[in-house]
Amino acid sequence: MKKQKNYSDLCIETRLKLGGRMIEMTPRAYIRNKDDLSTYYTPGIAEPCRRINKNVEDAYKYTTKNNTVAVISDGTAVLGLGDIGPEAGLPVMEGKAILFKRFGGVDAVPIVIGTKDPDEIEKFVRWIAPTFGGINLEDISSPRCIGILKHLQDVGIPVFHDDQDGTAIVVAAAFKNALKVTGRKLKDLTVVINGAGAAGYAIAKRITSGKEAPKKLIICDSKGIVYDKPGIDEHKREILGMPGAIGFPGTLADAMKGADVFIGVSKAGLVSKDMVRSMNPDPILFPMANPIPEIMPDEAREAGCTLIGTGRSDFPNQINNVLAFPYIFRGALDARATQITSAMMNAAVDAIASCVAHPTREKIVPSSLSPEVGKRVSKAVADAWLKENRKNKKK
Amino acid sequence: MKKQKNYSDLCIETRLKLGGRMIEMTPRAYIRNKDDLSTYYTPGIAEPCRRINKNVEDAYKYTTKNNTVAVISDGTAVLGLGDIGPEAGLPVMEGKAILFKRFGGVDAVPIVIGTKDPDEIEKFVRWIAPTFGGINLEDISSPRCIGILKHLQDVGIPVFHDDQDGTAIVVAAAFKNALKVTGRKLKDLTVVINGAGAAGYAIAKRITSGKEAPKKLIICDSKGIVYDKPGIDEHKREILGMPGAIGFPGTLADAMKGADVFIGVSKAGLVSKDMVRSMNPDPILFPMANPIPEIMPDEAREAGCTLIGTGRSDFPNQINNVLAFPYIFRGALDARATQITSAMMNAAVDAIASCVAHPTREKIVPSSLSPEVGKRVSKAVADAWLKENRKNKKK
Repeated sequence: MKKQKNYSDLCIETRLKLGGRMIEMTPRAYIRNKDDLSTYYTPGIAEPCRRINKNVEDAYKYTTKNNTVAVISDGTAVLGLGDIGPEAGLPVMEGKAILFKRFGGVDAVPIVIGTKDPDEIEKFVRWIAPTFGGINLEDISSPRCIGILKHLQDVGIPVFHDDQDGTAIVVAAAFKNALKVTGRKLKDLTVVINGAGAAGYAIAKRITSGKEAPKKLIICDSKGIVYDKPGIDEHKREILGMPGAIGFPGTLADAMKGADVFIGVSKAGLVSKDMVRSMNPDPILFPMANPIPEIMPDEAREAGCTLIGTGRSDFPNQINNVLAFPYIFRGALDARATQITSAMMNAAVDAIASCVAHPTREKIVPSSLSPEVGKRVSKAVADAWLKENRKNKKK
Repeated sequence: MKKQKNYSDLCIETRLKLGGRMIEMTPRAYIRNKDDLSTYYTPGIAEPCRRINKNVEDAYKYTTKNNTVAVISDGTAVLGLGDIGPEAGLPVMEGKAILFKRFGGVDAVPIVIGTKDPDEIEKFVRWIAPTFGGINLEDISSPRCIGILKHLQDVGIPVFHDDQDGTAIVVAAAFKNALKVTGRKLKDLTVVINGAGAAGYAIAKRITSGKEAPKKLIICDSKGIVYDKPGIDEHKREILGMPGAIGFPGTLADAMKGADVFIGVSKAGLVSKDMVRSMNPDPILFPMANPIPEIMPDEAREAGCTLIGTGRSDFPNQINNVLAFPYIFRGALDARATQITSAMMNAAVDAIASCVAHPTREKIVPSSLSPEVGKRVSKAVADAWLKENRKNKKK
């Protein structure tokens, strides 16, 4: 935990040094004289307006719409901090914007909003959409975020929720390489996901969206194994309908007995060594609770597990969203996609996994700083959209 | 008109050359390694979130909120082009953002929205307010914009509509120097404003907000002189209640007979030489319709007027909003003002006027590129807020 504290201090120091301004709006043309003023502002500016008025698609040609994404949050599920309000969520949106530009070359605008009402959030996104080439929802609490994301797929620009599909994509890529390393096939495995919120739901969807389904998929929430009973959340019922999914009354410990894979998007310390020992031989463990995992890698190792991925940078196999979201949007913007489709997300999974040429137990995910990831993922995502779109057009 | 065309071409050329991206989001810290990633993003980023959660005012300390303004339009009254839709309005918002940074050091985010409903626009602004240190409304058609601006004064951050008060401030500054040049006093003069939309309304308000009122203030709309009759717009009735304001049935020509000052925020060519000749000796003319004024300066001169201001850069005395809005917000942000008050706007008027040390008929407004304007106006605006606020606190 000492390291953690250092980063906190460093973050505060940097922000104070920069007067809170970690990111800024930079004009790319400098106004030296009155002619420049007349060119970049009135009267010259009227011309692109006229052209876009004639053909709204020209907004992509003449404005920042072609490269700009909004990072929108209501501040209700910020990191592990919970509902801390929009202003307190702003640093994360700014951080995300820094990563968008650094890794994807995408201009991202941090936006936090003062409403938590799902209908209002949807309205807000629809109203602001003309400005942007895409919308990245962020840190909106579950299960509201699941409905919001679904309803906003018709906006006409890609709307993505990183805490759902971004996480799921990177987990699925790590998982793909874990299967490769251990020489196994999804169809032979029992997968347990602990956490039935937005991330758990999206991971279940991603893992079951390929050609092969897991032998068994068991998802747990804070009350134990999710099974069909009156009054369960709609998205949990949806999970139970996914390929391989089963539900029955029981605890997380019950679920893990004889399972091959554990994926945790829940809370610190929920998994004991005995629970790991109760799994099938050579289990795969992704305890991703942040900052403290469901089981610490050292303990998991003591219990006989040698393939472990976490969200932490101080252990091998960091499962980090930055491997996906900047490049998902880079590809979507490049292809002028109007949605992030399941095919695009699966293409991202494969591309991320492919960046580790020879996966080992200590390396199933590429480095978050690898330039190769950006090239492959953004191209794969753009290609997937173009392929699908051509197909759709032919129909 | 040849020059006009050149600026259009130059604007299009520049935008195409830059791939439409006239402005970009630039991180001010570079991520070189995993430590930087942990500092600028997780886990370090949690610390400013925690602090702002404890004290929401800390958002000004740790985030871009302290220097960032949203430029928001619904695209209904863009330049002289009318209701061209949000996307077509985006170039103007981007241009404005360039000027905000270049002149005021303010980070401005261009935002165009897909609703024209005044209630929805107000909701939108309230929802997005937590992100920003101020809101600059732009190109929202009249009379909707007048109510919207009024209702949003309680948001907690400055909300300003440049097409109303920005224009009014620069007109009032030019007018102040015109009075100085011609050795006259407002209380002896008849002022005609042609245009009873947002700009005309705000100019009337600004001109009558000082210690002195005009002898007579006559405002005209497209139907002629505004006077109290059943069914007139609320803001027109408000104008008729301003100090010196009178109304009676008549035409613009009737209004101008014997008037001393003409301020036009209406349409090209509405004023004839004869109408200028019907005014009192040595009239002051601000025909500001853009790009073609109510009367061209050459014609006004032929009709005997030697003190003329327009919106154009190719004639003397360009009355340009850029003299006000970047510095109004600079000052408001520096003082952490929660509104742009009338006192702050009057302080801006005086500061802009003061930047012309020795006003002449050819120079009643400072150059839009003069660094002196930025220094004086931003300081005057900040000081005015602090003075008022101290006064309010003492009460």
